[in-house]
Amino acid sequence: EGTGVPFKGNGRFLRGNQRLPHMIRMLDLYELTMMQGYFKNPVQETVIFDAFYRVNPCGNGFAIAAGLDQVIDYIKNLHFSDEDVAYLDSLGIFEKDFLEYLRGFRFTGDIYAIPEGTVVFPREPLVKVIAPIMEAQLVETAILTIINHQSLIATKANRIARAAKGRGVMEFGSRRAQGTAAAIVGARAAYIGGCIGTACTITDELYGVPALGTMAHAWVQMFDTEYDAFKTYCELYPGNAIMLVDTYDTLHSGIPNAIRAFDEVLRPKGITKCGIRLDSGDIAYLSRKAREMLDEAGWETATITVSNSLDEYIIRDMWMQDAKIDSFGVGERLITARSEPVFGCVYKLVAVEDKDGNVVPKIKISENVGKITTPHFKKLYRFYGRDTGKAIADYLCVYDETVDDSDKMTIFDPEATWKRKEVYHFEARELLVPIFKNGELVYKQPSLEEIRAYCAAQVDTLWDEVKRFDNPHRYYVDLSQKLYDIKQELLT
Amino acid sequence: EGTGVPFKGNGRFLRGNQRLPHMIRMLDLYELTMMQGYFKNPVQETVIFDAFYRVNPCGNGFAIAAGLDQVIDYIKNLHFSDEDVAYLDSLGIFEKDFLEYLRGFRFTGDIYAIPEGTVVFPREPLVKVIAPIMEAQLVETAILTIINHQSLIATKANRIARAAKGRGVMEFGSRRAQGTAAAIVGARAAYIGGCIGTACTITDELYGVPALGTMAHAWVQMFDTEYDAFKTYCELYPGNAIMLVDTYDTLHSGIPNAIRAFDEVLRPKGITKCGIRLDSGDIAYLSRKAREMLDEAGWETATITVSNSLDEYIIRDMWMQDAKIDSFGVGERLITARSEPVFGCVYKLVAVEDKDGNVVPKIKISENVGKITTPHFKKLYRFYGRDTGKAIADYLCVYDETVDDSDKMTIFDPEATWKRKEVYHFEARELLVPIFKNGELVYKQPSLEEIRAYCAAQVDTLWDEVKRFDNPHRYYVDLSQKLYDIKQELLT
Repeated sequence: EGTGVPFKGNGRFLRGNQRLPHMIRMLDLYELTMMQGYFKNPVQETVIFDAFYRVNPCGNGFAIAAGLDQVIDYIKNLHFSDEDVAYLDSLGIFEKDFLEYLRGFRFTGDIYAIPEGTVVFPREPLVKVIAPIMEAQLVETAILTIINHQSLIATKANRIARAAKGRGVMEFGSRRAQGTAAAIVGARAAYIGGCIGTACTITDELYGVPALGTMAHAWVQMFDTEYDAFKTYCELYPGNAIMLVDTYDTLHSGIPNAIRAFDEVLRPKGITKCGIRLDSGDIAYLSRKAREMLDEAGWETATITVSNSLDEYIIRDMWMQDAKIDSFGVGERLITARSEPVFGCVYKLVAVEDKDGNVVPKIKISENVGKITTPHFKKLYRFYGRDTGKAIADYLCVYDETVDDSDKMTIFDPEATWKRKEVYHFEARELLVPIFKNGELVYKQPSLEEIRAYCAAQVDTLWDEVKRFDNPHRYYVDLSQKLYDIKQELLT
Repeated sequence: EGTGVPFKGNGRFLRGNQRLPHMIRMLDLYELTMMQGYFKNPVQETVIFDAFYRVNPCGNGFAIAAGLDQVIDYIKNLHFSDEDVAYLDSLGIFEKDFLEYLRGFRFTGDIYAIPEGTVVFPREPLVKVIAPIMEAQLVETAILTIINHQSLIATKANRIARAAKGRGVMEFGSRRAQGTAAAIVGARAAYIGGCIGTACTITDELYGVPALGTMAHAWVQMFDTEYDAFKTYCELYPGNAIMLVDTYDTLHSGIPNAIRAFDEVLRPKGITKCGIRLDSGDIAYLSRKAREMLDEAGWETATITVSNSLDEYIIRDMWMQDAKIDSFGVGERLITARSEPVFGCVYKLVAVEDKDGNVVPKIKISENVGKITTPHFKKLYRFYGRDTGKAIADYLCVYDETVDDSDKMTIFDPEATWKRKEVYHFEARELLVPIFKNGELVYKQPSLEEIRAYCAAQVDTLWDEVKRFDNPHRYYVDLSQKLYDIKQELLT
């Protein structure tokens, strides 16, 4: 019996959270020059950096955190090979003692992070690094590159998956991705966000994202007739017989030839599941006609897959036009997050430990108000209504504060302090969890399937108003009175 | 003596065209399932695929070909490890004999390509693969991913470099790149397009793109005072003293402190070259004020570097506002080509060899007219005016045609055949060169510096009208009469 879907990997081969070979040393030169500066001029030892973003991508009302797995991998493996040290030596700006220090380098600090798949909002610390300044500065670029990329793609994929209303969305964009890592780990992020699989085979091999595929136009062109191409394919892969029907003429050639191949090859085998793929033309119209033709031929069980520069808006339009679609192959607009290809996580110093071990909050003031940071070693809570299960608000406070969710509480908007809200009958959950302690991994990494399921459940905790594609309701991310006062004091 | 620019690598360490570790097997599952199909059902042996794009990115009048070096690297190293084969076996769709074939796989075909750094236009074959169908289909995704990504970034970088009017543009976008490969090879492509260097240090180590850097806000925050931070930096790196002046207050604190540090640390050493970086606020205004303040303090030799979400439009505006800028640090909008993050190269079958060795042209017809391919084994010429040195038109013809550039010639627009143009006193140069012959590399790869210089020279062959940022003049890409006739015949 066929599956009615394209080929699908089984995740059985999963190599585990294996280090991707491209996760090599990835840093900006200034991290090393500043590092040498601290090496030569010891300043406060331990510092706290937050990685956070300022604006949700693609007009979305939230983002989805992703990439932590690769950050862990990077931190665990970060070192300088002899070749790296020789290269740095060749630049003529690093001294021997510092290069020797690099040769023995390993990360010894603490890292907290919001788990992958979590819904997150602007100005929340997604990753928090507490480490000697030399180490904390060194990991800046890698953390940002990985988190920015994967959170962006997970967020975009989630928009598209929601637009598909339960029909499968297949990630088909490798060829338009911004390089090989963008394709490979991008497909992983897309899966977290809600895609059902990817064409990128090595992403299955490395991470267990189901590999999927149909056929190219070239397959059809290689045979004397379109019918021969379809028939041969059905004979080869009767369990995954998805015919690409638009090489010559979708309605007058492609679909009739597909039906004939199904009739002649699949029906005698008792196979009822199969399908077609539409890749050009007016997809909504063609899908309705295709559905009619397949049904009339007794192939009600044949599925219709569509592709061709799709995104959440085009998919939403298709439903409005009563398209008959069972699954979507989405390429370039997903894998590049074309509607906003930049996720702007930054990495900012928020506190240092003074000589007596006190945590001293730090702020970066800017002439661009939006670039002013929220200082201090912070905790982040999410409040869920105990009756609805829905997320009510997020709450940032100082590390030594605790939220008592057994009582009611008044929170306020830090940008319009007169906007106050009383919350009650809620459950407060901390979002940042320990990942590394003194350089040792202390976090039990969930499986990719667990992350994906957790992501779907977390998105379900949002009210529909926050999930709109355009002009979503702004979710509350409030500051505790203590944190607000400290920020104001540092500003003045 | 200082350099007045941030740190700069020297390219001396260049590891040569070494394979980047992330250049692993990169393919879509359907390539393997179709491949097994051909393995089981031998069809025409040798085929020709063209990789071409349809629309110039970012509204540009042309694109810049880039990525060939990595394509060569990929093809040379393409194989299936035992682990790969075991993974594919686990999918349950591949038979033992095919898996054995994969185990011994290597590419045996021919590849032609347009060299990196060349100006290219829509519908021109950037890469042409002539190989047994099984091999030609297998390399589709890798070729497209690499060429699409690097051509996109080289094209965007070239726009930004042209906007900067000779002032250096530094690629500072790693942290916002779409993954690690996008950062690392993206910086290489940016250098081809005209950037002077990158913050991404490993790109220097691997490819010899000069590594550059200044300081982060955190450096300034780590010291008791801004002045201490600047003074310490000037003492450490007197040859590369670029102060980031916007941590607290650019005009009232940052620039005065920078001047004081220059006066106290650099002047006694006789160093006159140094600089400041502006990263927020109204850059154009601040740059004028900064210039005045530096000049008044006797630091006419200090440079002004600016950064903060720049692109070609913002830079052009800055010149209109008489900004005083010596170099630009450009991040997210370059490294993601934010204005159009997709470069749409496709890979299409254009011909097959029949049993008698004749080349039979193939076409893919589509209900979207723009998706119809130009069939056949083609040659591509560029015509340059012998007097001006400027590019006049490109000319696609059938492989067995030759252009005689000693005489005049009439060419015509394939979309409006009544638009005819007589060209004379021109030199015709073939753009596609042999890269692989029977699987062997026959191309002498130019150095990255040569590619970059060649790119600048090629862009200079374009008339200004083609180089406009918006609504550029459409450059002529014409078909020979023979090729045009063959296409029309296949269409009807």
